[in-house]
Amino acid sequence: MSDIQRYHSDQRLSRLVVHGNTVYLAGLTADDRKKDMKGQTAEILARIDKLLAEAGSSKSKILTATIWITDMRDKAKMDEAWIAWADAKNLPARACVEARLGSPDTLVEIMVQAAK
Amino acid sequence: MSDIQRYHSDQRLSRLVVHGNTVYLAGLTADDRKKDMKGQTAEILARIDKLLAEAGSSKSKILTATIWITDMRDKAKMDEAWIAWADAKNLPARACVEARLGSPDTLVEIMVQAAK
Amino acid sequence: MSDIQRYHSDQRLSRLVVHGNTVYLAGLTADDRKKDMKGQTAEILARIDKLLAEAGSSKSKILTATIWITDMRDKAKMDEAWIAWADAKNLPARACVEARLGSPDTLVEIMVQAAK
Repeated sequence: MSDIQRYHSDQRLSRLVVHGNTVYLAGLTADDRKKDMKGQTAEILARIDKLLAEAGSSKSKILTATIWITDMRDKAKMDEAWIAWADAKNLPARACVEARLGSPDTLVEIMVQAAK
Repeated sequence: MSDIQRYHSDQRLSRLVVHGNTVYLAGLTADDRKKDMKGQTAEILARIDKLLAEAGSSKSKILTATIWITDMRDKAKMDEAWIAWADAKNLPARACVEARLGSPDTLVEIMVQAAK
Repeated sequence: MSDIQRYHSDQRLSRLVVHGNTVYLAGLTADDRKKDMKGQTAEILARIDKLLAEAGSSKSKILTATIWITDMRDKAKMDEAWIAWADAKNLPARACVEARLGSPDTLVEIMVQAAK
């Protein structure tokens, strides 16, 4: 039996899953959807910090990130929040593509895989 | 040389790849495309059960899932099938975003990473 | 502290990340955006070869690939380049979905996870 820990689960998903040396985060969107792209991104990134800390990891150990934004014309605003937050010496592999998300006012969603 | 097993390969991809302690499934869509979002999702999830069993894993060991649906307004129907199927005590990290898929009547596609 | 190597980093991301036995590539798009879907795909795949070699891996060890294309009607052109390139006996789990990408003339973006 594998040793898998799951945290912050709702009816559908766990926002934090830990398996061995690897940490998985997904389903991360901003609670305050009145914020713009930059504000929503910053809120999610602060939440990623907390979740990674809970798993004994940190932003400096992120391996890969997938970022979905609802409007590619706002990518620069997402990137502003990202660059202000990211550890410039330890940047993950990252994809950012456009997609419609779970609710119309959700502007960005992030999925992350990190090492412990 | 790494020890990688690949199963259910066609000309382009393998639907099941096993590497060490981790199982990768992708390219999973419904064969019966006359079904609605809920039906297609249920068909894919049943197929995931079979593929995971083949690799010595199960839905209780899924680490992360990415779900693409063609119309976000039908997310509730996908979720209905998902919630009926998922192991409520062992939910994966999960992202669900909208995307056009390989054929017009393909309504949902799922990608999964699981532990053995 | 985990042992993570990061290469080809810009301000936002690393195009190659190595952690233990696993290699992560992302943010891969064609430099020559005048090429069509097939040409851009071939350019990215050649780059993947180089990056994987740098990490002591190869296309025969790819575990999973996510391919985003801007127009699903051009999927056959992407697949032509893919099939010509891929190791037919060692095909990864693969998803291909439609998404708008970072610039209007970027037609395809690829993300890869491989074993070393």
